[in-house]
Amino acid sequence: MNLPHQVTICEVAPRDGFQAEPKWIPTEDKVEMIRALAMTGVSQIEVTSFVHPKAIPQLRDAFEVATQVQDLPGITLRALVPNVVGAKRAIDAGIHKLKLMLSATDSHSLANANCKVEEALEKLDPVFDLAAQNNITVSGSISVAFGCPYEGVVPIDQLIRIITRYQERGVNEISLADTTGMANPKQIYEDLEIFNQEFPHLRFSLHLHNTRGLALANAFAALQQGVTHFDASVAGLGGCPYAPGATGNVATEDLVYAFEEMGIHTGIHIESLLSIARRVQKQFLQNGESFLLRAGTCSQLHSKPDHQEKLID
Amino acid sequence: MNLPHQVTICEVAPRDGFQAEPKWIPTEDKVEMIRALAMTGVSQIEVTSFVHPKAIPQLRDAFEVATQVQDLPGITLRALVPNVVGAKRAIDAGIHKLKLMLSATDSHSLANANCKVEEALEKLDPVFDLAAQNNITVSGSISVAFGCPYEGVVPIDQLIRIITRYQERGVNEISLADTTGMANPKQIYEDLEIFNQEFPHLRFSLHLHNTRGLALANAFAALQQGVTHFDASVAGLGGCPYAPGATGNVATEDLVYAFEEMGIHTGIHIESLLSIARRVQKQFLQNGESFLLRAGTCSQLHSKPDHQEKLID
Repeated sequence: MNLPHQVTICEVAPRDGFQAEPKWIPTEDKVEMIRALAMTGVSQIEVTSFVHPKAIPQLRDAFEVATQVQDLPGITLRALVPNVVGAKRAIDAGIHKLKLMLSATDSHSLANANCKVEEALEKLDPVFDLAAQNNITVSGSISVAFGCPYEGVVPIDQLIRIITRYQERGVNEISLADTTGMANPKQIYEDLEIFNQEFPHLRFSLHLHNTRGLALANAFAALQQGVTHFDASVAGLGGCPYAPGATGNVATEDLVYAFEEMGIHTGIHIESLLSIARRVQKQFLQNGESFLLRAGTCSQLHSKPDHQEKLID
Repeated sequence: MNLPHQVTICEVAPRDGFQAEPKWIPTEDKVEMIRALAMTGVSQIEVTSFVHPKAIPQLRDAFEVATQVQDLPGITLRALVPNVVGAKRAIDAGIHKLKLMLSATDSHSLANANCKVEEALEKLDPVFDLAAQNNITVSGSISVAFGCPYEGVVPIDQLIRIITRYQERGVNEISLADTTGMANPKQIYEDLEIFNQEFPHLRFSLHLHNTRGLALANAFAALQQGVTHFDASVAGLGGCPYAPGATGNVATEDLVYAFEEMGIHTGIHIESLLSIARRVQKQFLQNGESFLLRAGTCSQLHSKPDHQEKLID
């Protein structure tokens, strides 16, 4: 079985998780968690989002957060930016990598960004220019890439069209997001097979949600297509706005555990990560979910009980 | 991507789920649930276990349950039997398929069956004879096949030795159980590749637990090795005795959903199954877990909201 030997995980809890928290998290708490995460060995962190403070007041301290974590060594600081105003602020705050967002469907784009996909793309034009001028890396994300909660299955041609447009504007990393957990591993495998053929020079990364329990299966399918970049959120922080009680982001510790068990190096120290996850779960958790927090790793073997147990399998 | 077009799922909640319930479930409730499950289109049900009533008092009505579901058309009734006494009672009660159980390791065998693997195998000798005389199918199960909570990784040679012994005694279906959820998809893929080469005439089925969130990834890996038989438990009924709060059996509805989304026919009607799962969750659930119960299927599309939403991916 031919899988990558090494992967890069981008920790997204400080953006994707914190933006979903109803109550205000003080800037110093955000900074402290980013610092703690950096100590686990993770190499990329999505630290915040430079959106309008009225749209997401939870992240209105984006500039302060970003400037206060500039000293972290060896960490790529990524931020979500919706437009050129946000992009400019992100660059000024010392962000290394901008994440742009488009929806795969017009319905989702209208709900999320108040315009159709084509118009959203045009609006991003000055961001590409600004990033190029400043020599800043751009990750081009596509939301609901594997299924839209309003339109269902997304035609592959629609995805190819958006990826082509990103590529034309100099983007060399495409983040495919399974925003509401509608992907299945066969689809991931086959879509990525096509993308790898059509765009041999692009890097594809995956942003998976575990809404229907398939996130790790989808990650496994992606690994088989050579994908080496994944987003994840510690303790699964960050909810899914469509199905109440449904799981959102795949938990970083679950992804790290799964990869390491398969001999795939993540560079992340699982026990340090679990200790942050435990703290996050206590402090913030509403919708998050983590298998590892409940079950522990496999390496924690049990001592054999003295009494006879019941037949289990 | 070359996956099977069709799979067979054996519903194990009436045995694996009910044996874990602390309070007594009346025989008529058990029978009624088996009848309801049969209506979903599932073709195999593990209806009970013919163990000593002192070992598992929850299933002391095994004979009554089995005899009262004899009229179900087209359903293979399977039961777990630990020894020849149980096997005889199961056959007398009209069971179609006996499931035998061995542990992959001596430590687990001692804890579960009070003797080492070799001795447990010898004790099964008269069961094989009885089954052959009565022309009854036998499924040979191996617990903790992909990891033992006391010993860790199980050497592949140890598994090959047990499978060989089963084969020598006429067993043609081997059920590999990931009893405490220690398997990973690479391991499943590679182990099954070896088993398929070593035992080309045996059928391998999988009994997966979702303890660390990998059950569906493991199922996907098994599909890629041509596995077409899986156990599952409605609503994930049936706990894991080692890690409190940890998930046990993979939920049937999660497995059915995943397979059907990949175009793999299960013959099971997901909405009928979900309605039973909802009932089970209300009535019995302690340790069970189901993604589909929380998130619903993908086919339930949402109407687009009128208001503008926040940036999500």
